[in-house]
Amino acid sequence: MTRGSVSQNDCRQLERSPLIGAETASIEDLIAQFGHLSEPDSGPGVTRLAHTPLERRAHELFADRMRALGLTVWADAAGNTIAEVAGTELGLPAIGTGSHLDSVPHGGRYDGIAGVVAAMEIARLKTEKKIEHRHPLRFIAFANEEGARFGQACIGSRIVAGLTTRTDLDRLTDANGVTVAEAMSTVGIHPALVSEAQWVPDHWAGFLELHIEQGSVLTSLDIPIGVVDLISGSTRLQLTLHGRAAHTGGTPMHLRADALAAAAEIVLQAEALATDTRHRGTRITVGKLDVEPGSITTIPGKCTLAVDIRDVDSDRQRESAAELIAAAQAIGSDRGVTVDVELLADASPAILSAWVRDEIIGAASGLGLSYRVMPSGASHDSQMISHICPVGMVFVPSQNYGVSHAPDEYTTAPDLAAGIEVLASALRALDQTLNPSNGPKRVEGDNDD
Amino acid sequence: MTRGSVSQNDCRQLERSPLIGAETASIEDLIAQFGHLSEPDSGPGVTRLAHTPLERRAHELFADRMRALGLTVWADAAGNTIAEVAGTELGLPAIGTGSHLDSVPHGGRYDGIAGVVAAMEIARLKTEKKIEHRHPLRFIAFANEEGARFGQACIGSRIVAGLTTRTDLDRLTDANGVTVAEAMSTVGIHPALVSEAQWVPDHWAGFLELHIEQGSVLTSLDIPIGVVDLISGSTRLQLTLHGRAAHTGGTPMHLRADALAAAAEIVLQAEALATDTRHRGTRITVGKLDVEPGSITTIPGKCTLAVDIRDVDSDRQRESAAELIAAAQAIGSDRGVTVDVELLADASPAILSAWVRDEIIGAASGLGLSYRVMPSGASHDSQMISHICPVGMVFVPSQNYGVSHAPDEYTTAPDLAAGIEVLASALRALDQTLNPSNGPKRVEGDNDD
Repeated sequence: MTRGSVSQNDCRQLERSPLIGAETASIEDLIAQFGHLSEPDSGPGVTRLAHTPLERRAHELFADRMRALGLTVWADAAGNTIAEVAGTELGLPAIGTGSHLDSVPHGGRYDGIAGVVAAMEIARLKTEKKIEHRHPLRFIAFANEEGARFGQACIGSRIVAGLTTRTDLDRLTDANGVTVAEAMSTVGIHPALVSEAQWVPDHWAGFLELHIEQGSVLTSLDIPIGVVDLISGSTRLQLTLHGRAAHTGGTPMHLRADALAAAAEIVLQAEALATDTRHRGTRITVGKLDVEPGSITTIPGKCTLAVDIRDVDSDRQRESAAELIAAAQAIGSDRGVTVDVELLADASPAILSAWVRDEIIGAASGLGLSYRVMPSGASHDSQMISHICPVGMVFVPSQNYGVSHAPDEYTTAPDLAAGIEVLASALRALDQTLNPSNGPKRVEGDNDD
Repeated sequence: MTRGSVSQNDCRQLERSPLIGAETASIEDLIAQFGHLSEPDSGPGVTRLAHTPLERRAHELFADRMRALGLTVWADAAGNTIAEVAGTELGLPAIGTGSHLDSVPHGGRYDGIAGVVAAMEIARLKTEKKIEHRHPLRFIAFANEEGARFGQACIGSRIVAGLTTRTDLDRLTDANGVTVAEAMSTVGIHPALVSEAQWVPDHWAGFLELHIEQGSVLTSLDIPIGVVDLISGSTRLQLTLHGRAAHTGGTPMHLRADALAAAAEIVLQAEALATDTRHRGTRITVGKLDVEPGSITTIPGKCTLAVDIRDVDSDRQRESAAELIAAAQAIGSDRGVTVDVELLADASPAILSAWVRDEIIGAASGLGLSYRVMPSGASHDSQMISHICPVGMVFVPSQNYGVSHAPDEYTTAPDLAAGIEVLASALRALDQTLNPSNGPKRVEGDNDD
């Protein structure tokens, strides 16, 4: 069997494992509620950028629902929202699940939201059905995950993992020069307190995240569950090209220093590098390119490019970045265009816990759902949380050829329901198997990955 | 001799012709006054776009000065401002001079302004010195010359030449979707009346425009005066590329339809086409390129390019456009990116009147100033006015390697003064030689060009 639609009417494939009872109507309702929180008049798709009033409204929606279920809810100093339900045994570390609530500009309704909705649906069903658990369960909505606004991804989870500090919040800026710290302050988050948000490894037993695949592997193979083993690292560069603005009619071709022509060569060089056989698996993208002054009658004097270099191999990731920088400087030199390079962000690939992965595989198998172990090309909060405790990720299929960060991003409600069942089953397995005598499974930085 | 600084203290080179007495202090003052009219907080350079309140303030500055000199001033239905001083002989057609008052975004202080300041300085000196002339003299500040806002250049002069009509004003839009007609209305110009602005050829004897070269020919040869024989035509295209937005990490290189990668190929193809030996003299520029959604973690799903194709050979201009469109469509086809093409504007090259050119050459020679007959790569209002009456253009040197449409645009005040002297002398020559019995010189569309 392959695809599992886990509606109440069609659970034949799940008979080997108890269903938590995830409901497609409830899931669709939550997806729609978050989807409506988008900047008015911002064009197609969802625009709910990090540290904006809209992102806070999404966190309030999450907090209100969790409070209504009777959970204890608090916001930490990074802007993350955490909802806890106590376990039956005192003194055990927490098990967490969740994802993020911000979007890229003109993004979709599922990236991040799917994992938060999964957490909300599990919280609802566990509460309504009074399903007990030994460990405290924490349902988490991270803030500021998308690198879209500040270049650096996963800032909310980086802060709790101690990877981003107060100083970084003054250094990173958005396109308007607003720092992360300034943006936080405008929505009532106090950047001076961020160190208080850091998680203590001893307080955490494990973390699971459900996320849409953001690729087309699962749909092309007709498999409902992805189990992530590796998360790509990402090196992000900003290249600023200074040529010479001049009149398009008055300036012969051979007297030009056209910043856009140089940028065009760099874009194609980035693509050539990623598709070169030495770099199989590297993904390089120029996602932003701003042209100044941007007039039809002026040769571009300045171009700013944002480049994202991803790889599951950390050495190849950094070598690709170095090769691209060298190529860009050679291109600039040939054209009389200076090339300034700024490192926006640099995150290493993460290897997720093998034993947590096995629990997810066990959960999927127990539910009769086929699965595929696969890497994640995208960064996720889990990558940062893996610095604190053992982490696992469940992928659900992305429709429309895997499109994401775009209005067409779509995952079906039955696929979400199946993923939520696997997530709930894996959380239950962690809750039951994790205990102080389990030894290596609780040790931070376990080496059996 | 070559460069002529035409200050009152140094007129040795001008002894063969009477000086009108252009003053560098007066010229610098006017340049500065217009230069201050720039959008606040718009960044470097002058930003005074067509049909904005700032452009109107520049027209008011022109109108107020001319009224103070005693001239009759009116604004026409296209937003152009015209100041007239009567001639000594009744019933003769007018001789005009002037240029435009709008700028590109982040442009310089001289493009257009130089020609209006020249008109103002000549009006001042003719009035103060009571210099008589047979024909009515009209000093003109055209509106909406730069194609920067609406894609189409020289709209103010196209309207008076009957080349742009009411319908076009509803068709052409700026980046925010505002039509020319709507923009006109917001600054008190009534688009419904534009046909009233059209000039009657019988009422015009000739038109001269002084303009900065916007290139580096004159400075590189150390020649103070350019006499324009041809004005390049310009075909302007907007290419809209639709690829597939997707997550940069989740999407393997071979599954992408990256609109920016396709755009980069087109930018380089445009450059290759213009530098190909078959196209020597063609100038092709991609001056605008917008990327959507413009996020560092999203493969670009849409790119919009604005392309400017200029040539003094009208056939080669249109062939270049056709070749570029075919190449763009082939590039898109290879990449799964659709390419939509819109013709923004298409103006043929103009051949200026040979006999008017000879009068300008005579004026420069009479003043002892060296000159070079040269084509103009840039479009100018004169190109449109050449459809109404015989036209000539005087170029003055552009410093800083000829940079224009940029903050570094600069022409020295002595160079402007020399150009103004040539312009005044040529206007006087036209006034004296033109008369009803002159026959061919007054005939519209004379073929001795």
